[in-house]
Amino acid sequence: MKLATLRTGAKGTTAALAVGADGYLPLPYANVGALLADPAWRSIVEATAEAASSAGSRAGAGMIEAENADFASLLPEAGKVICGGLNYADHILEMGRELPNYPTLFAKHADTLTGANDIIEVSGSEKVDWEAELAVVVGGPLYRAGEDQAREAIAGYTVANDVSMRDWQNRTLQWFQGKAFDATTPVGPVLVTPEDTSGTFEVRGYVNGELVQSGNTDTLVFGPARLLSYISQFTILRPGDLVLTGTPGGVGMGMIPARFLQDGDVLTTEIPGIGRLENTIRIYSNDGAAASRTPVATTTTKE
Amino acid sequence: MKLATLRTGAKGTTAALAVGADGYLPLPYANVGALLADPAWRSIVEATAEAASSAGSRAGAGMIEAENADFASLLPEAGKVICGGLNYADHILEMGRELPNYPTLFAKHADTLTGANDIIEVSGSEKVDWEAELAVVVGGPLYRAGEDQAREAIAGYTVANDVSMRDWQNRTLQWFQGKAFDATTPVGPVLVTPEDTSGTFEVRGYVNGELVQSGNTDTLVFGPARLLSYISQFTILRPGDLVLTGTPGGVGMGMIPARFLQDGDVLTTEIPGIGRLENTIRIYSNDGAAASRTPVATTTTKE
Repeated sequence: MKLATLRTGAKGTTAALAVGADGYLPLPYANVGALLADPAWRSIVEATAEAASSAGSRAGAGMIEAENADFASLLPEAGKVICGGLNYADHILEMGRELPNYPTLFAKHADTLTGANDIIEVSGSEKVDWEAELAVVVGGPLYRAGEDQAREAIAGYTVANDVSMRDWQNRTLQWFQGKAFDATTPVGPVLVTPEDTSGTFEVRGYVNGELVQSGNTDTLVFGPARLLSYISQFTILRPGDLVLTGTPGGVGMGMIPARFLQDGDVLTTEIPGIGRLENTIRIYSNDGAAASRTPVATTTTKE
Repeated sequence: MKLATLRTGAKGTTAALAVGADGYLPLPYANVGALLADPAWRSIVEATAEAASSAGSRAGAGMIEAENADFASLLPEAGKVICGGLNYADHILEMGRELPNYPTLFAKHADTLTGANDIIEVSGSEKVDWEAELAVVVGGPLYRAGEDQAREAIAGYTVANDVSMRDWQNRTLQWFQGKAFDATTPVGPVLVTPEDTSGTFEVRGYVNGELVQSGNTDTLVFGPARLLSYISQFTILRPGDLVLTGTPGGVGMGMIPARFLQDGDVLTTEIPGIGRLENTIRIYSNDGAAASRTPVATTTTKE
C-alpha cells in the first residue's frame, strides 16, 4: 500500500491519495496525516482501490495520472517531526568514534517540510548541506511503548532529506536553528506500508547526478522501532508524526574541502522500493531581492 | 489586559478567559492561542469586559471567581514552542564565558506544556532541574521580521519554568530529549499584554519556598523582540506560538554539590506583575507503578 499527499487544484488545497498501478486515487482526507488519524484508514484505502478497480474507469474514479502528480509535503500538518542524528554505525566507526548509548535527537516543525519535487529556497545561509534519510511515519498513538509495540505502530516509510544550514547549525551548540528553515526538508513522494517493503533500505543522495551518499539502514545503531520506542518514553507520538532516522556518511561538511550546495544544484534523494525526491536548490543572499531581511544578531547588543 | 486558559468543567475542555478585577470572563475561544488567532481579539476582549461591567452581575456574565480558576497550559495547542538558552549576560559573565553572538535555540512541543498549578510528574529521570523564565506569546504572523515589527507582534508575556531532565539532556550533545518530557513545562497563569507591563521583569525561582533563582530581563543578551526577529529569519511565527527567553543563574545543576528536585518538592516560579506558577513535583522511577516503561537504549544493539 502506497499513500501520497498531492496538491489538488486550488491554491494550497491538498488531498491524501492511494497510489495505484496507473495513478493516484483520491481519498476523503486533506493529507496522509489526516488519513492516518482515522483508525479505519487501511480499510478505507482498500475499499477505495476496490471501487476504482471495479469502476474500471480512471475518470470515474477521479484518478490523477502519475505524470500529473504535484507532491505536497507528505505530512503538511505533522504535530511532531523528530530527527535522529549520528545513527549509522559504519559511518560513526569510520570516523573513529564510539557507538552512542543513546540516540541524538532534535526537532523540526511541519513548516520545515516540503514536497518531493519542490524548489528549495534558502535565504541567508552560505553552507547548505544535504542529509539523505529514511523517515518513519507513525501510525498509532505511542507512549512509553516497548519496541514491539512501536514496530506495530509504524504506518510506513518514506524518503527525506534533512537539508541543513551548517553555518546556522554551528552558530551555537544546539543544531535546531540550522535544521528548521521553513520548507527545506523534502519528504515523500509516497509512504510505503511496512508489508510492502523488505524492512531494510538503501539510502542514497546525489548532487547534480553524482552519488555523494550511500548507506544501508541495516547499519543503523537505533533502528526505526527502537527510535520510536525511545522517543515515546518522554513524549507521546501520534498518527501522522514523523521520525527521521539520521544520515549515512558523505555529507558535504565532511568532505575535504567541504562542499556545499550552490544555487541551481539538483539534490536527489533515493530509497529503492520507496521513491525518489528531486529538488532544485535556490540560494538567496541576505540582501537578495527574494528576501526582505534585516541584519540580525551579528552583535551582542541587547534590544 | 490579562488573559488565561482555564479548564472549564467537562474533562479536557478549556476556554480562553479575560482576567478582571473580580474573576475570569469567558471568551468564545477554546484557549488563548485560538483567541489570538482572531485578528479582532483585542476588541473582542474589550467588548466582553464592557458587557460584563454593564451587566453588573457575576452570574449573568458567566464569570468564574478567581479561587475557582483551574489553569490549563496557557497555550495547549501552540504550533511552535521555541526556547532560548544561555541568555542572561550577568550569569554568562560570572561563569567566565563570553557573550554569545547568536541565541542558542531549541524546541519543545505544545505537549511539553502544563498548567500553572499542575502536578509535574516525571518518570525515568533522576536529575530533574528548574529553569525559571520569562516567556513571550506571539500575537501576529512574523517572517523575516525586523526588531520593531517583532516588538509590535508581541501579544504578551507570561511565566514559564523550563523544567529539564539533566540526565536525558546530557546523554547526547542535543538538549531536546531532556527538555521535551510531556507536561513538564508549566506556563501561565496568565498572559499580560505589553501595555500593562513595565517591559522589564524580575524572574524568580523557589524550591520549597527557598529562593534559588533571581534575574532581571534587563540583562538578557537577546531580548524578546530580538529573539522573535532572529527566529523569524528561518521560520514563520504565528499567533499563539511561544518563545521562552532563557533562565538566569541558580539552576540546580550549577550548585556545588548539584541539587535536583525530589519527589514532593514544590517549585514556584514568579514574575512580579505577571504572576506565579506553583507546581508540586512527583518523580517516579523507571519501574514505578505509575509508568509501564520498558528498558531502552542502555545498549547499542540495533533492533
